[in-house]
Amino acid sequence: MNLHIINPNTTAGMTETIGEAARRVSAPDTRIVATQPSHGPVSIESHFDEAISVVGVLEEILNGEKDGADAYIIACFGDPGLLAARELTQAPVIGIAEAAFHMATLISTRFSVVTTLARTGIIAEHLLDQYGFSHHCRRVRAAEIPVLDLENDGDAALTRIIEECRRARDEDQIGAIVLGCGGMADLTDTICREVGLPVVEGVTAAVKLAEALTGLGLGTSKYGDLAFPRPKPFSGRDENFSNLQPTRR
Amino acid sequence: MNLHIINPNTTAGMTETIGEAARRVSAPDTRIVATQPSHGPVSIESHFDEAISVVGVLEEILNGEKDGADAYIIACFGDPGLLAARELTQAPVIGIAEAAFHMATLISTRFSVVTTLARTGIIAEHLLDQYGFSHHCRRVRAAEIPVLDLENDGDAALTRIIEECRRARDEDQIGAIVLGCGGMADLTDTICREVGLPVVEGVTAAVKLAEALTGLGLGTSKYGDLAFPRPKPFSGRDENFSNLQPTRR
Amino acid sequence: MNLHIINPNTTAGMTETIGEAARRVSAPDTRIVATQPSHGPVSIESHFDEAISVVGVLEEILNGEKDGADAYIIACFGDPGLLAARELTQAPVIGIAEAAFHMATLISTRFSVVTTLARTGIIAEHLLDQYGFSHHCRRVRAAEIPVLDLENDGDAALTRIIEECRRARDEDQIGAIVLGCGGMADLTDTICREVGLPVVEGVTAAVKLAEALTGLGLGTSKYGDLAFPRPKPFSGRDENFSNLQPTRR
Amino acid sequence: MNLHIINPNTTAGMTETIGEAARRVSAPDTRIVATQPSHGPVSIESHFDEAISVVGVLEEILNGEKDGADAYIIACFGDPGLLAARELTQAPVIGIAEAAFHMATLISTRFSVVTTLARTGIIAEHLLDQYGFSHHCRRVRAAEIPVLDLENDGDAALTRIIEECRRARDEDQIGAIVLGCGGMADLTDTICREVGLPVVEGVTAAVKLAEALTGLGLGTSKYGDLAFPRPKPFSGRDENFSNLQPTRR
Amino acid sequence: MNLHIINPNTTAGMTETIGEAARRVSAPDTRIVATQPSHGPVSIESHFDEAISVVGVLEEILNGEKDGADAYIIACFGDPGLLAARELTQAPVIGIAEAAFHMATLISTRFSVVTTLARTGIIAEHLLDQYGFSHHCRRVRAAEIPVLDLENDGDAALTRIIEECRRARDEDQIGAIVLGCGGMADLTDTICREVGLPVVEGVTAAVKLAEALTGLGLGTSKYGDLAFPRPKPFSGRDENFSNLQPTRR
Amino acid sequence: MNLHIINPNTTAGMTETIGEAARRVSAPDTRIVATQPSHGPVSIESHFDEAISVVGVLEEILNGEKDGADAYIIACFGDPGLLAARELTQAPVIGIAEAAFHMATLISTRFSVVTTLARTGIIAEHLLDQYGFSHHCRRVRAAEIPVLDLENDGDAALTRIIEECRRARDEDQIGAIVLGCGGMADLTDTICREVGLPVVEGVTAAVKLAEALTGLGLGTSKYGDLAFPRPKPFSGRDENFSNLQPTRR
Repeated sequence: MNLHIINPNTTAGMTETIGEAARRVSAPDTRIVATQPSHGPVSIESHFDEAISVVGVLEEILNGEKDGADAYIIACFGDPGLLAARELTQAPVIGIAEAAFHMATLISTRFSVVTTLARTGIIAEHLLDQYGFSHHCRRVRAAEIPVLDLENDGDAALTRIIEECRRARDEDQIGAIVLGCGGMADLTDTICREVGLPVVEGVTAAVKLAEALTGLGLGTSKYGDLAFPRPKPFSGRDENFSNLQPTRR
Repeated sequence: MNLHIINPNTTAGMTETIGEAARRVSAPDTRIVATQPSHGPVSIESHFDEAISVVGVLEEILNGEKDGADAYIIACFGDPGLLAARELTQAPVIGIAEAAFHMATLISTRFSVVTTLARTGIIAEHLLDQYGFSHHCRRVRAAEIPVLDLENDGDAALTRIIEECRRARDEDQIGAIVLGCGGMADLTDTICREVGLPVVEGVTAAVKLAEALTGLGLGTSKYGDLAFPRPKPFSGRDENFSNLQPTRR
Repeated sequence: MNLHIINPNTTAGMTETIGEAARRVSAPDTRIVATQPSHGPVSIESHFDEAISVVGVLEEILNGEKDGADAYIIACFGDPGLLAARELTQAPVIGIAEAAFHMATLISTRFSVVTTLARTGIIAEHLLDQYGFSHHCRRVRAAEIPVLDLENDGDAALTRIIEECRRARDEDQIGAIVLGCGGMADLTDTICREVGLPVVEGVTAAVKLAEALTGLGLGTSKYGDLAFPRPKPFSGRDENFSNLQPTRR
Repeated sequence: MNLHIINPNTTAGMTETIGEAARRVSAPDTRIVATQPSHGPVSIESHFDEAISVVGVLEEILNGEKDGADAYIIACFGDPGLLAARELTQAPVIGIAEAAFHMATLISTRFSVVTTLARTGIIAEHLLDQYGFSHHCRRVRAAEIPVLDLENDGDAALTRIIEECRRARDEDQIGAIVLGCGGMADLTDTICREVGLPVVEGVTAAVKLAEALTGLGLGTSKYGDLAFPRPKPFSGRDENFSNLQPTRR
Repeated sequence: MNLHIINPNTTAGMTETIGEAARRVSAPDTRIVATQPSHGPVSIESHFDEAISVVGVLEEILNGEKDGADAYIIACFGDPGLLAARELTQAPVIGIAEAAFHMATLISTRFSVVTTLARTGIIAEHLLDQYGFSHHCRRVRAAEIPVLDLENDGDAALTRIIEECRRARDEDQIGAIVLGCGGMADLTDTICREVGLPVVEGVTAAVKLAEALTGLGLGTSKYGDLAFPRPKPFSGRDENFSNLQPTRR
Repeated sequence: MNLHIINPNTTAGMTETIGEAARRVSAPDTRIVATQPSHGPVSIESHFDEAISVVGVLEEILNGEKDGADAYIIACFGDPGLLAARELTQAPVIGIAEAAFHMATLISTRFSVVTTLARTGIIAEHLLDQYGFSHHCRRVRAAEIPVLDLENDGDAALTRIIEECRRARDEDQIGAIVLGCGGMADLTDTICREVGLPVVEGVTAAVKLAEALTGLGLGTSKYGDLAFPRPKPFSGRDENFSNLQPTRR
């Protein structure tokens, strides 16, 4: 299967990190294509960054439809544009936050999230509510590191993340930790070893969920509220979205 | 005060309808500026339409910041880009869905929503959950009319909306009806008269809430998770968002 | 418009404080009438105080109906008698707790309440649940000052409130603070300045919401469960409530 | 034990009905005293009726404290004044709505409520939410009979209640029915026989819960938010509540 | 009435403790029969222990049906097998966790649970959710003592429980404490005296609730989802459950 | 990997059906071992059947631990014994109800469940609540067929299931259907074709989730409340559970 992983920000190094993490867990017959939008923010640390990134995410979905992608992953912990992306395709689309939450509930009764900046905690809280997992999450914690520090100042960032994970382990009455940023995809094993709890990371979790859905022959429902959008005119620089013709499978 | 009302779609006729409805209820010293993005979809009837429209909405916020807007309204019933917009400004930003929900709870114990297409019902459901009003809303109903029929085939659309409102009144054990589309802003009085229940419409509700917040000297909190976004590079066609300098008041 | 603000306790000084705070934010054509019951407790610090005060509140509503009041505010943070008051009139009736909660959710994602005595925290918790805002409120905090200290020992009271507000700001991951007592209506600006967060106070919030509803032509729904009470005999000292004839507008 | 049952309305016939129903299930050493306020509404069918009735209910609690009551029941399905009453005494105080809900959850997984008028349904809904039972109640139904018809037109009222109970049984996927009015206390056996489901009635349920608490030596907690109210001045016709001295046991 | 109290573990000393505690509060005409399964774990401290114990609990119910039991109590704080037990009989069946929760909500607005081992906290959390009481419980606390220490090292265990109860009283803003283990049934008075709050214990609470239901003529509903199980073959060592013939009353 | 699928009932034909359905979707290197307890009910249609079946399920887990199983599936829609099973092993354990719910939320916003008998609907409701999916499920529906009809009267059963699925599709505003019985595992394709909606079945969903977890190196957390049970004596026919020594990996 062709699995397109969309890093919603424009930092190529992070796209690579994500792609490599995905390849480490993917099945032999899964071909990972890690992409990123041609425009947008270098990192996503606010509702604003997220909102701007979504257009690029959706363009990557449409590109994937032309290339025959079999499934998609949106590799930012806010799952930006998830439901919009699902409308554009009959293939499965998985967000890395939802992927991590689902997996964490299968191996523990309660978990905590450790994310980058406290200001993005509200995004995780809203997703937990919408997905139904707010009772399974004891606490959303922040290591207070900017996202790009994961690329540029990796050792210091790792130290702070591990410290916060240890506090979660000791204070939160949990069985697992969810890492709250796509840029942490390569840190999972180290953190797990240092902290001694199962650590669930969204990119890798999403790869396996995408393979799972594909293996079941399940894709996004085109019946009801995730049906293809009604074709219509878009103007200005969004003209390319006019009268979209869906790729039926 | 300068109140900027942003119609997230690009249909000028609807922008006018919205602006006029707003002016009918605004205070004497409120100057209504009804705007629309320079690009995007002609109507919003899906998560996809909504996601694309958000960039234009945020550009209109930034334009408004330069023009000295005192408050903003996002005039589409999905409240697209609401939290992102709030990050960009110290002024209040109100979505018309939230405005209508808040007002409806002040005059009734339970209400129903009557919107355009059933496929957008899930957007209203998610907002009701996030805002805390899902227990106050008995049912989200759809008249099954495309949004632009409100412009192009107004009489037939009105008839169907009134029929659905009557069903809500007779079956749902409610005290009020919330109209679920910005394009219905000019129909409120007629529907109210025909149905005999208080009918709450979001554009007008948002105008009065924006005036209320301004009158209290309250604007979007810049403490915590709605603080201005961290300035950072954006690339490609989003370059204009790079290193945004917030307008402090 | 004639806006009747009912202070549910019998302390005239507090009625004045409330009236003045209301006038400072009211629109030019809003005439504020601050009233208080002719009988009842000097302050409201328990379910019991609240329950006794409600009869006087309802009498003030009936008096207001005779005087042609256009809207009502119940100016105690427990919103005593709110739904009963709404049954008695077609005009809008706003409680100051609900007003503050609504406004706080429009400018922040999460808030904390700072009230007087810890024992009244449960009243706020029940209201947050009923109104749908329990997820938006991080914590209900008490400065542990009796209500009348706000009148009689204002400086010490103010100091303790500011201290508690600072703790809320530093510990609760919030964007705004809601003041949990009508008697704090004149302290808002000072507290806001000292604490550096938006501070939402209910009396002033309710004034603007009442103006907003009136401006929209919206009043309490008389369809369904807030319809006028069925006229019936009342005996003893409640005889004056017998066979109430509603004021239709 | 002395068990005071307070009928919050002033209809003596209903007080008798309630007292007799209570005596039929009470333990040999339980002395039932059925009382009613000396003033207030003849029936309770609105938030307004309920609010006015509460003062009389609380006076009956204070009278009971002087008479050495060991426990109290508030015999109206809205549980009017319940938390205020609990503040006034160290004895247990039980509302008949809560009593019925508790008992119904012990013998079935889901129940429906059949009450008198649809307009009071919202009172039951709010109580179900506050008490935690909204998931256990499938539906609040109304037979659309005024409360006093239970006294004055008993046969017709009974017929309609039975019809509504049968609809609940056939449509709601329930295991039990809760009768939603104190005036139905004498109808339980008949309805149960006609409908063929367990029927839970609040007055009788409350008698047994009051006996249960007393048998356990448990009374209203005086630690925390149900502590005796702070003594304070009350003015006008409420002067008798000034500086209340609690009866400690 | 014949009240069968089933201690789900096989420690006879604990069965005696439970039986004695029950007898101290039971009505004169209640005959307490305290039983325990003929096989199973010596204590219940995990989901696994609980799951194994359930078969013995259900056998005791079937034995009780032959002996003419009028009501049953399952005396382990996880309420193991409660709904299965209810299916087997028309008599009431009460779990001690639910009994304690119900009683605690009648005398306080909020309570905390103090249980034995932290690892069983999740069992209490799940029950609180299912029963509807999660908003009424501030916190589930553990004294971190193995269950059998209550039998074998009683003084040390008691000391730790009292310490944890005091922390609950001082930190949790509660009005009552619920003891989270059947083996604490004889400690209630001591703890209550030491801590100064109402302390609710499940075995005694369940006795009074069982008497209450019996006094009302209410038993487990046989209409709907708690009806007698469909008779069917069971094989192997479970053959004795084949084609069960229910005892109708 | 060795994937043990435990059919909790003793009907060998159903175990085969389940095993074959599992093999159709499993990865090439997954070895499916379909087992069933040596004792217990022939089908599971009540809390009672479920409770008895759990012991056998747990024995199969312990057998699997000896055989080096890498993951487990509990193949009955009530997920009987799930948390107890997780305590016994470091390997992942998946219930088919949770598996189906998780998968359904990844391809639709809302789903309905179609199960066998209405009386088991409450089991699904409780699981939906505990797992967090009650908002994602519009309705739990029953085809009213006994479980073994799926084996013995397959065509008639299939017809009724398809009819109920069509009603769900037409009335429930859903995007997917969840089949609510392990015995339907071989019907998925047919139903999907007849109904025209994505149909999610739990056995197959669980196989892919088990492979996903294993592929991620994630197993049941042994930190916190799913740690191995404390070893202890069990008596009588449960003696084999005494002092269990966990298999650490």
